[in-house]
Order: sequence, then C-alpha cells, then structure tokens
Amino acid sequence: MTFKQELENRAAEVEKILAAYGTMQDKSYQKTVMEAMEYSLFAGGKRLRPILLQETFRMFGGTGSIVEPFMAAIEMIHTYSLVHDDLPAMDNDLYRRGKKTTHAVYGEDMAILTGDALLNYAFETAGKAFDMAEPEELPYAVAALRILAAKAGIYGMVGGQVFDVEAENKDLPLTEEQLLFIFRLKTSALIEASLMAGAALAGAGTEEIDLLSQIGTNVGIAFQIRDDILDVISTQEVLGKPIGSDERNNKTTYVTLKGLAQAEADVRAYTEKAQALLEQLPSDSTFLHDLIDSLTDRMK
Amino acid sequence: MTFKQELENRAAEVEKILAAYGTMQDKSYQKTVMEAMEYSLFAGGKRLRPILLQETFRMFGGTGSIVEPFMAAIEMIHTYSLVHDDLPAMDNDLYRRGKKTTHAVYGEDMAILTGDALLNYAFETAGKAFDMAEPEELPYAVAALRILAAKAGIYGMVGGQVFDVEAENKDLPLTEEQLLFIFRLKTSALIEASLMAGAALAGAGTEEIDLLSQIGTNVGIAFQIRDDILDVISTQEVLGKPIGSDERNNKTTYVTLKGLAQAEADVRAYTEKAQALLEQLPSDSTFLHDLIDSLTDRMK
Repeated sequence: MTFKQELENRAAEVEKILAAYGTMQDKSYQKTVMEAMEYSLFAGGKRLRPILLQETFRMFGGTGSIVEPFMAAIEMIHTYSLVHDDLPAMDNDLYRRGKKTTHAVYGEDMAILTGDALLNYAFETAGKAFDMAEPEELPYAVAALRILAAKAGIYGMVGGQVFDVEAENKDLPLTEEQLLFIFRLKTSALIEASLMAGAALAGAGTEEIDLLSQIGTNVGIAFQIRDDILDVISTQEVLGKPIGSDERNNKTTYVTLKGLAQAEADVRAYTEKAQALLEQLPSDSTFLHDLIDSLTDRMK
Repeated sequence: MTFKQELENRAAEVEKILAAYGTMQDKSYQKTVMEAMEYSLFAGGKRLRPILLQETFRMFGGTGSIVEPFMAAIEMIHTYSLVHDDLPAMDNDLYRRGKKTTHAVYGEDMAILTGDALLNYAFETAGKAFDMAEPEELPYAVAALRILAAKAGIYGMVGGQVFDVEAENKDLPLTEEQLLFIFRLKTSALIEASLMAGAALAGAGTEEIDLLSQIGTNVGIAFQIRDDILDVISTQEVLGKPIGSDERNNKTTYVTLKGLAQAEADVRAYTEKAQALLEQLPSDSTFLHDLIDSLTDRMK
C-alpha cells in the first residue's frame, strides 16, 4: 500500500470514530447548537491530529478502543478553535474549507456557544475512555487527559491565539522570536498534544513523551510556515478560503519576515529536525516520517 | 458561630483557594488574557459553587486538599459562562456585580478568548487533583472530573444557555416546561455538579450522589426564580447591574408566567423540596440547610 492510500485509510477510520463520538444524541431544546457542533465537526479537514494520536498510541503498543474517545476529543478541540477564530470579533472569516463558517450559518451568538460546547464536549468525550480503561490503564488515561488540557490552554493553543490577535489589533510588527512563540503555542501545541497523548495512553515513558513533544514543536512550526507560504502561492479554489489575507491584514508572517525562499528552506529544516528526532524513538516511525513529509509539501 | 459568620468564613476560605489556583504564573506574551482571567475570576461573587462542593466533600468524610483544585475549577467554569454571557453578541451587558464586564474592559475578542481560556483552565486545574490523589482516590477524582464536564456541557449548562438565547432571538414566548428546562440546565446543572462532585471526590455512593443531583435541581430552580424576582423588585444599586432588563428584553421569566406572588411561593416550595431531600442524607446537613435558606431570601 502506498503512503497516500494508507493515509486515506487512516482518515476514513477517523471519520468513523468521529461519527460515533461526535454525532449528538437526545437533541432536545439544544438542537440548534448540536446541529452546529456537527456542522463544524463534519465540515472536512485533514484529521491530522487524531491520526497522529492514534499512530503514537499504536507505536507504543496500545491496543483497543480506549484511544478513540481521545481521537475524537482532540478534533473537537481543534474544531472549537476554528469556530471561535472565524468569529466576526476575531478573524471574521465567512468561508473555511470551501464551506460557510459556523457563525455565517448559525449566527454569532450560536457560534460562540458552539465553540464553548465543543471544547467542553471534548473533555466529556475524553472522559469516556475511563469507562473502557483497565485499572492499570487509569493513570495513563489521566495523563493523556491532562496533556490535552495543558496543550489546549493558556500555556498552549489559546495562549498563542491571544498574542496573535493582540499583535494584529495593535498592528504590531512581530520579531521572529515573537512569531515563533505564536507558532509554537497556536499550532505546535495541539500537534504535540496529539503525539504525546497517544503515547501516554499506551503507557510510554516520560523521556519518550518529551521527545514526542519536541517532534510536535518542529512539525507544528513547519506546518505553520507552510500555511504562511500557501497564503501567498495558492489559490482560493485550492485552499477553500481567500488567499492573500495575511497581506491584506498587514500581518507579520514567516514569509514577510524571511522571504519566500528562506521560508521554504526553513520548512524543510524544521521537518528534517522532526524526522531526525523521530529516529531516536524505539518504535517503527515510517508512517510518521512520511506523514511529516506530506505536510511539508501540502498544497492546502 | 452564626450561620452568617460561618458563611463568611467559608467564602474567605474559597478566596484563598481561588487565589492559589486562579492567579496565573509565567505571564509571557499571553499576559493580557491572563490578566483578564484574573479580572473576571476575582470580580467578586458569592462563591456559592465552591462552597457547596467543599461542604459535600466534608459531609461524606473527605479530608485533605484534593478538593481544592475542584473548588477552583467549578468557579472558573461559572466565571467563563458569565464572561461569554455578557458579550455583545449575547446579553451585551456592560456591568456585573457593580464592575465593568470583561469585554467592556478588554474588548470583545479578548473576552471570547478569556472565556475559552477559563473553561480550558478549569479542566487543567481539576487535573491537578491527580497529583494529590492516593491510588484509591484516583477513581473518585475521575468521577468528579466527569461530573464537572457533563454538567457544564451541552446536556448541562451550555445546553440551557443555547435554548435561552435562541428563544430570546426568536422573541418566542416560553411555556413553563420550556422555562424550567432552561432553569434546570442553565442554573441547576452547575449547582448539581458542585454538590455531586464534592461527594464523589469523597467516595460517596451512587444513590447519595443521585440524591444530591435532585437537591441541586431544586436549589437551582429556586435560585433562578429568585433571580427573576430580584430583576423586578431590586435596585441597580443593590444588584450591581441594571434591573428590569428581562422586561425590557420582552423576556419570558418565571414572574411574567406566574406572577410575583406565585413566584415567591414557588421559591419556597422548591427550597423546601430540596431541604426535605437533604434529610435523607446520612450526614449532618445543617450548614447546607441554612445555606439553601439564605439563597431563597437573598437580596442580590
């Protein structure tokens, strides 16, 4: 099987798991937001984070369905962050992945509550893993849950989002150090969480989890630089959202700071750094290696 | 010691615990939202939920500081819900408890992120209990965490909020059944969570936790009816926010549905129901009994 086929299989597996955990039951008077949660969650996407989480779970010998609630949970966290990012008071985006954003369909108030509900439901969903945990797995599931919370929070993803928005508000040109702070928190943190939580759930040791954290940092930075590049070189048709938005918003990006050629070189450098670290893991990391490559070269 | 003194002591204890868990460390580039988190968290309030959580923990024989992260967490969840409630796209309130609301001070985008950060940090904070848990307490802490997530979520608090906002948007007059649905989810759920999580953390049994859930439902409904009454009979000076807002917004309240006299009678009825259920608990519930009374008669 080629890597591309393998990746498609993995993504299809994630969709099934997401459908199981992300389809809301008992739609009473909360119906509208439950539909909005599903709309946001099933609007497509690469499903990168659940795929990463599942992969490190397997790499460290994890078996069984205890990983599934966590795979769904990390995608819910990612989705909530997009829903709130797109709000009129934030980036004010009407399209994402070629579809109308949540607030464009359901209104601003419902989109705020949809994001809140998804973030909360992520923890509720991760909690379902405890119903499946053998007594000796209990501490592993606790560790995985705490990784999710830490990496999604103010010292992780939300923290990066805050400084990003604030810098834009103040029309503040960013230094490379500040931009990398945003990349590490806003983008890397959740990729780190995916890699780390999967491994933790399988009972990996602290050193291995630390290594995965570093790998995630580098992958996230490469991913985000690639995002900045795509905003310049891609088209709305391919990307599913307007391009050139960074330039219009007068935003400091990796490309404005270092130029396109250097940006492309640095994507490769961060990618190779991640892959070199991957070699230090005791398990077969072929799939992860190829997956990281595919992110570097992606066109959307 | 009078009940009033006892309650003041408990609230002071909560403030100390909140200060320990809710004062943000390492204020890097996320400084602004960390300050906004503290601003919202330390803007006053009755601290009812942490007091309830601590009380049932003690009632069921809980000792030690493992309860503290949960006390802080539930107040963070309550606070995030207020921050998002007050947003321009929601209730658009500029004052709460006599102080400017979070978006009035920090702007709409920062207030959205402050709420997100607080909700996420609640789970991060509750997770700290695992550092203090003895091995046999691990399942108790897991149960308490899951109660928090369930009661704060789409089948709990957020669910109530959704239908409340939606009904208001559509200028929909509500039936009593619909209004009580909102009360049960928007207000009761987090009170149930407080009572249940404290007990669960101390190792209480399922039957006792179910009983506390019912008590919380009744207390929450009484609390919310009293809120509707205060919106009619109180003053902005006492309440710290504009009164008559329900009427201005043409909102169905318990008072518009049933009249002031019946509303007052029903507050008593729900209160007495809660107190009667309390009698079925094996532990000394004097403090809870008095606390529930004090909520019924409160002027703000």
